[in-house]
Amino acid sequence: MQTTADSAEDYSGLKVHTEGLSADSYFDPRHHERELQRIWYRNWIYVGRSSEIADPRAFRTFEFGNQKLILVRDDAGTLQGFHNTCRHRGAALCRESSGTMRSGAIICPYHAWTYNLRGDLVRTSSKCHAGGFDLTDYPLYRVGVREWSGFIFVALAPDPPPFDRIFDVPLDRLAPWRLQELVVGHVLVKNIQCNWRIFWENYNECLHCPSVHPQLSQLVPIYGRGLVEERDDPNWKMHADDADPKFKGGLRRGARTWSMDGQLTGTAFIGLSEADQELGHVYMTGLPSIFIVGHLDYVRVVRLRPLEPEKTELRVEYLFSPETLAMPGFDMSNVVNFTNLVMTEDAHVCELNQQGLHAAPHRRGVVMPEEYVIRQFHEWVGCELARS
Amino acid sequence: MQTTADSAEDYSGLKVHTEGLSADSYFDPRHHERELQRIWYRNWIYVGRSSEIADPRAFRTFEFGNQKLILVRDDAGTLQGFHNTCRHRGAALCRESSGTMRSGAIICPYHAWTYNLRGDLVRTSSKCHAGGFDLTDYPLYRVGVREWSGFIFVALAPDPPPFDRIFDVPLDRLAPWRLQELVVGHVLVKNIQCNWRIFWENYNECLHCPSVHPQLSQLVPIYGRGLVEERDDPNWKMHADDADPKFKGGLRRGARTWSMDGQLTGTAFIGLSEADQELGHVYMTGLPSIFIVGHLDYVRVVRLRPLEPEKTELRVEYLFSPETLAMPGFDMSNVVNFTNLVMTEDAHVCELNQQGLHAAPHRRGVVMPEEYVIRQFHEWVGCELARS
Amino acid sequence: MQTTADSAEDYSGLKVHTEGLSADSYFDPRHHERELQRIWYRNWIYVGRSSEIADPRAFRTFEFGNQKLILVRDDAGTLQGFHNTCRHRGAALCRESSGTMRSGAIICPYHAWTYNLRGDLVRTSSKCHAGGFDLTDYPLYRVGVREWSGFIFVALAPDPPPFDRIFDVPLDRLAPWRLQELVVGHVLVKNIQCNWRIFWENYNECLHCPSVHPQLSQLVPIYGRGLVEERDDPNWKMHADDADPKFKGGLRRGARTWSMDGQLTGTAFIGLSEADQELGHVYMTGLPSIFIVGHLDYVRVVRLRPLEPEKTELRVEYLFSPETLAMPGFDMSNVVNFTNLVMTEDAHVCELNQQGLHAAPHRRGVVMPEEYVIRQFHEWVGCELARS
Repeated sequence: MQTTADSAEDYSGLKVHTEGLSADSYFDPRHHERELQRIWYRNWIYVGRSSEIADPRAFRTFEFGNQKLILVRDDAGTLQGFHNTCRHRGAALCRESSGTMRSGAIICPYHAWTYNLRGDLVRTSSKCHAGGFDLTDYPLYRVGVREWSGFIFVALAPDPPPFDRIFDVPLDRLAPWRLQELVVGHVLVKNIQCNWRIFWENYNECLHCPSVHPQLSQLVPIYGRGLVEERDDPNWKMHADDADPKFKGGLRRGARTWSMDGQLTGTAFIGLSEADQELGHVYMTGLPSIFIVGHLDYVRVVRLRPLEPEKTELRVEYLFSPETLAMPGFDMSNVVNFTNLVMTEDAHVCELNQQGLHAAPHRRGVVMPEEYVIRQFHEWVGCELARS
Repeated sequence: MQTTADSAEDYSGLKVHTEGLSADSYFDPRHHERELQRIWYRNWIYVGRSSEIADPRAFRTFEFGNQKLILVRDDAGTLQGFHNTCRHRGAALCRESSGTMRSGAIICPYHAWTYNLRGDLVRTSSKCHAGGFDLTDYPLYRVGVREWSGFIFVALAPDPPPFDRIFDVPLDRLAPWRLQELVVGHVLVKNIQCNWRIFWENYNECLHCPSVHPQLSQLVPIYGRGLVEERDDPNWKMHADDADPKFKGGLRRGARTWSMDGQLTGTAFIGLSEADQELGHVYMTGLPSIFIVGHLDYVRVVRLRPLEPEKTELRVEYLFSPETLAMPGFDMSNVVNFTNLVMTEDAHVCELNQQGLHAAPHRRGVVMPEEYVIRQFHEWVGCELARS
Repeated sequence: MQTTADSAEDYSGLKVHTEGLSADSYFDPRHHERELQRIWYRNWIYVGRSSEIADPRAFRTFEFGNQKLILVRDDAGTLQGFHNTCRHRGAALCRESSGTMRSGAIICPYHAWTYNLRGDLVRTSSKCHAGGFDLTDYPLYRVGVREWSGFIFVALAPDPPPFDRIFDVPLDRLAPWRLQELVVGHVLVKNIQCNWRIFWENYNECLHCPSVHPQLSQLVPIYGRGLVEERDDPNWKMHADDADPKFKGGLRRGARTWSMDGQLTGTAFIGLSEADQELGHVYMTGLPSIFIVGHLDYVRVVRLRPLEPEKTELRVEYLFSPETLAMPGFDMSNVVNFTNLVMTEDAHVCELNQQGLHAAPHRRGVVMPEEYVIRQFHEWVGCELARS
């Protein structure tokens, strides 16, 4: 049944036998802290949609790891990001998770130090200043902010990677979806008891699909064979002329989107290519925090946030066109129920994966040929951790 | 009142003044981890009764420390033990705590790697294997399993001590009880807020009996004197000819077993020696996890399991003959209520003991003459920890 | 608006620009343990009122950090303090938090080792003692005890500082209040999610009063200017002849005490100086655990107790004269509601302060001129930690 991989150059799978990351790196608190410092506090991290902070003086807070941030749109319309910490005695500045800075300033609730919306300290509450004190020495701690296609990203480090480098496809891959204009129609949040990398690995292979996702395996027949794409099969050339989706990928005949019955739930996006329409799902992934999938009638965004070494928050946002959301009697349960089912199945096996890692003799797992994206991910993690 | 120990050669008590183990070893998390590694993951640990996994393909899981195991009876009737961890990506294999492996194989719920019941990997889910991959390199992580008299023990280390060496008496000491045939009639589980060694020490001396166990001290008069056996008394020779149980040990006149009224609750075992019948309790202890006591009409088994540095699980199993359990209207409350009372008293003082250990100036306690078994226990702990 | 400090010699504020303590010292568990060892286990710590343990043989327990103590009044009327730990195996001696040692002895509930109320071991439960054992080698672990003006303090270290050195004013500063005779009329306990030093800093400056305490700022007008005392203002000489409390300090005209309406709630203490009556509040602070404030009609005592690096217990005791408490229909809500309001406001900003300290780029805050007492506090903390 199992054959040795042929050496076909265009076979996607791994031809060399490799090992996974060390088992204890998935639960050791010190390793986790190191990953927060070197991966999460250094890269561009997805926060939420620009529309949440659309107007001047609108703000929201955002936490990840143990860092708490403020994002505020200044009067010139630029989104500014700061640590939620006053430079005086370190108090948190914002108590609400979102709102409007009505005064056009950020005023510390403790001693009323006052900053403008670009983060400059403009006033303290002291009657005078001691020798050597200079307001310009105490701006808010600034963080990098990037708005792209209606998505907000932050970077804590002063030298984050170029923004487009965090993605696995060109930045304009989903341009036909006009992401900028889409609206969040539904949100689903789930905490799962596993390390964030366990979910990352789970998301990036389909070897588990036959065991774990019976419905998804029917909707996407090639997943039912444990593969993501045509060339994941060492013998793909034997079927190169067969248009059956179980060999070519994409949705089963007759299905058009990821939903309970495979049918659209809203109006289809206009302007998608024939190929993308046929495929039924176009992936775009931003390391380490965001997965985007364009479907014919909606876009699904998964935001990952590490909470503890063995606890991760998933937040799924469903984006629709304003026209779809405005449809009378629009019902998205067909979509939401399906992806919720898949995610519940994934969450369950991710938790099983985490549980098994503590076995004393287990040093590391093994990366199988179909898991070539996991291999790339492990290499990326290794490089990030090795940076000084 | 208190006299100096005479130098009688056959006095049991300590004649040399010694100190206890260091106070912080009873709560320091790093020390606890070291004890798990060197004591609990190295010795034979009691799991449960063979009858729980009697049939081919029956399995149960077992956890201790942070290790999760599977025990499964193979088709040849041999009990096999494995870490509950798949060799692929480390997922937990069994989700249920017990059941039957109907397919005769252990199949990982994540990617369907398949192992036979002897732990050999027989199939992966990959279409091919990368260079250098060999199924025989990936058997389940095996653990030692030993069945004795209907009791199952596991050993995680490849070189556990000889099985009979963990016991304080010869393996056949309780042979007249025909342990193999007995049936668990009742189970009681209790978590106590103390280190496992605190309970161990408590179990192995009776200096506390007068203060802590008034009913037990009446049932076993020598316990009421703070002693376990005749020769724990430095002046035992003065009473060498006195048959009173307060000097000789054993139950008070008229009592036959450990129960509220001292009377039997079921039928007495047949074939016990005169001496054992008179004594009323025969102890057998296996380091570090099991205490067995043979009474005239039942056998009591206590399983110890460390949960945290300051938290320990006690599980008490009451074993009866099948004939006793089959008696119409059989009522074991006479027995269960009594031992439950004693154990509640012990749990309470064990928790008090734990609480006092954190005092900054307290380096270690002192081992009194009657606590000679504790002294031996401390020496054993020291030897285990010193092993490389 | 903001001017440079003049060099007036009698200006209280800081003239040199200084930094705060390192941000991570407010949450790092290892640093916290070091502060427990070097500050809390070394200095005189406030326990409670002598009247709680008034009679011979009366006792109470007291915990702070992870140390558990017994305080007991011996038959000669002297208050004795011990770790709540038996010298035999380390068990906790007292199970109740207060009561009477009826036998005139402290008897360990585990093995009945017996100590007199001065902590000497007078009896073990062993039949004999092993060679080298001497009762006098095993007294209870003693701690220093000091009774002053009806307040009980303990010191764990053998070499605590001289008692009067922990206070910021002479020991007799509140003598007119006859503290010894006062009675606790009300107690309020509140846990706040911050390091103990955050509350300490909060208590010792009024820069936050305008933002945080609107009512208090009305009652004490100089607080409404962010100042505690006249000379905290760099331009105080400009108002040296102005008797307005907003420059001179003290309560607003017509107010007599800290209460909702500024009016007395009980009878005024007799014998207070004119100046103290006019001021309306006289502070006395004992490092690191007690704040006392004498008002015209009551005394407020705040006891601080660190529970975790980011959790602190506040206990407020309201002391009245026996005459006031005996007044028919005496209602203290006027007082209690006011100080409860102020404390709730302080607790809230202390928690905000704590939350902001975790920002990765935040190394330490800055100490402003009005925060000169905080500067002294930081120096004291630094000296305590530096002691070998």
